[in-house]
Amino acid sequence: MGCSTFSNFTVLPEIAVAKIREDAPFQSSCYIGCGVTTGVGAVINTAKVQVGDNVVVFGLGGIGLNVIQGARLAGANRIIGVDINPDREEWGRKFGMTEFLNSKGMSREDVVAAIVQMTDGGADYTFDATGNTEVMRTALEACHRGWGTSIIIGVAEAGKEIATRPFQLVTGRNWRGTAFGGAKGRTDVPKIVDMYMTGKIEIDPMITHVMGLEEINKGFDLMHAGESIRSVVVY
Amino acid sequence: MGCSTFSNFTVLPEIAVAKIREDAPFQSSCYIGCGVTTGVGAVINTAKVQVGDNVVVFGLGGIGLNVIQGARLAGANRIIGVDINPDREEWGRKFGMTEFLNSKGMSREDVVAAIVQMTDGGADYTFDATGNTEVMRTALEACHRGWGTSIIIGVAEAGKEIATRPFQLVTGRNWRGTAFGGAKGRTDVPKIVDMYMTGKIEIDPMITHVMGLEEINKGFDLMHAGESIRSVVVY
Repeated sequence: MGCSTFSNFTVLPEIAVAKIREDAPFQSSCYIGCGVTTGVGAVINTAKVQVGDNVVVFGLGGIGLNVIQGARLAGANRIIGVDINPDREEWGRKFGMTEFLNSKGMSREDVVAAIVQMTDGGADYTFDATGNTEVMRTALEACHRGWGTSIIIGVAEAGKEIATRPFQLVTGRNWRGTAFGGAKGRTDVPKIVDMYMTGKIEIDPMITHVMGLEEINKGFDLMHAGESIRSVVVY
Repeated sequence: MGCSTFSNFTVLPEIAVAKIREDAPFQSSCYIGCGVTTGVGAVINTAKVQVGDNVVVFGLGGIGLNVIQGARLAGANRIIGVDINPDREEWGRKFGMTEFLNSKGMSREDVVAAIVQMTDGGADYTFDATGNTEVMRTALEACHRGWGTSIIIGVAEAGKEIATRPFQLVTGRNWRGTAFGGAKGRTDVPKIVDMYMTGKIEIDPMITHVMGLEEINKGFDLMHAGESIRSVVVY
């Protein structure tokens, strides 16, 4: 259940096709066509997180968990996950999250203050994987002044705007965004497949459900209820 | 008339003092203590503009003109100035501006469309030197998607917020800010004094008025009326 299309036959522009190694199973590799590359790529291509950086991830769904494992791969120091669903703490820790903040009922100011305290001044990189414009603002303001960078991954509702006081930027924070993790599909997707096949990143545990085409609506229900990370439809 | 303090005797923390070469005249070098370093530094320290980049500067006052000459120094290709005061076109051209856009009465969409057309897709770097939060948004949206970076230099009114659709960032624009041009006063101010003394940047033409302390209120009047770039008070 992602943004990947699925079909046995389709017409695509040649540049939209990437050849991957033959031993990669389709049932898990398909996720690289969207969420895995988006989350891991946001860390390694867009942010370029380096060893020792402190990272905060807002929203521990199918994108956020991939940001977490991207940060682990890049050698980040503290990897803090933020979500309003406490069940996601266990999920985050599976992929390298070091601390969890349950932000349910907390104001923006309180979340920012908590992260500033945990990171001794603010994060080096924050990632929004929620699509909520208010969370995007929180993510920016939780960055360290002078150099902190916040990256918007989530897709907001049509017409919604992000806002902040310009002082947040003048004091040295950077506000950025990323689509498909800044990856070039043709060249980068096969590299991520290699990372998966060599065990540098995990995909299998995130595929919580596999189902036939006749159950596709159940897949959407599970997603909306927060009970699945990703469902793969096999047909 | 800037943010520099002026006094014959004062108490300062040692780290706030920079030693400059003895042959540099105070009457012009004083401007390096604020506007020159802020504008030139925004280009060379914060944006790191490179040869061939296209640059747009919003607001051609005492900061914006220094952004223009910083862009010229960095070898920028097109240096487009935007202001609602047509008298500023001549000022911009003195310091390296290649094109002028009089944005008086234009909507944000129209200004963005004009710049996108002039730069074949948007600017590599835009700078807000107005302090107007609506102009800050225009500056961001006039950047090229994929890599364009907008830098806020101006100081906004208390409580005012910047806003945009997150799509602007997700499609690869970067929103940043700078204070004192990202310069380290102790080490960078003497370097800018050297740039001035060796003719790499100009200061003298920007000092439109020199006056005694008894005329200081006239200095503020000239500034508010847009008739001065900078006034220096000698006493």
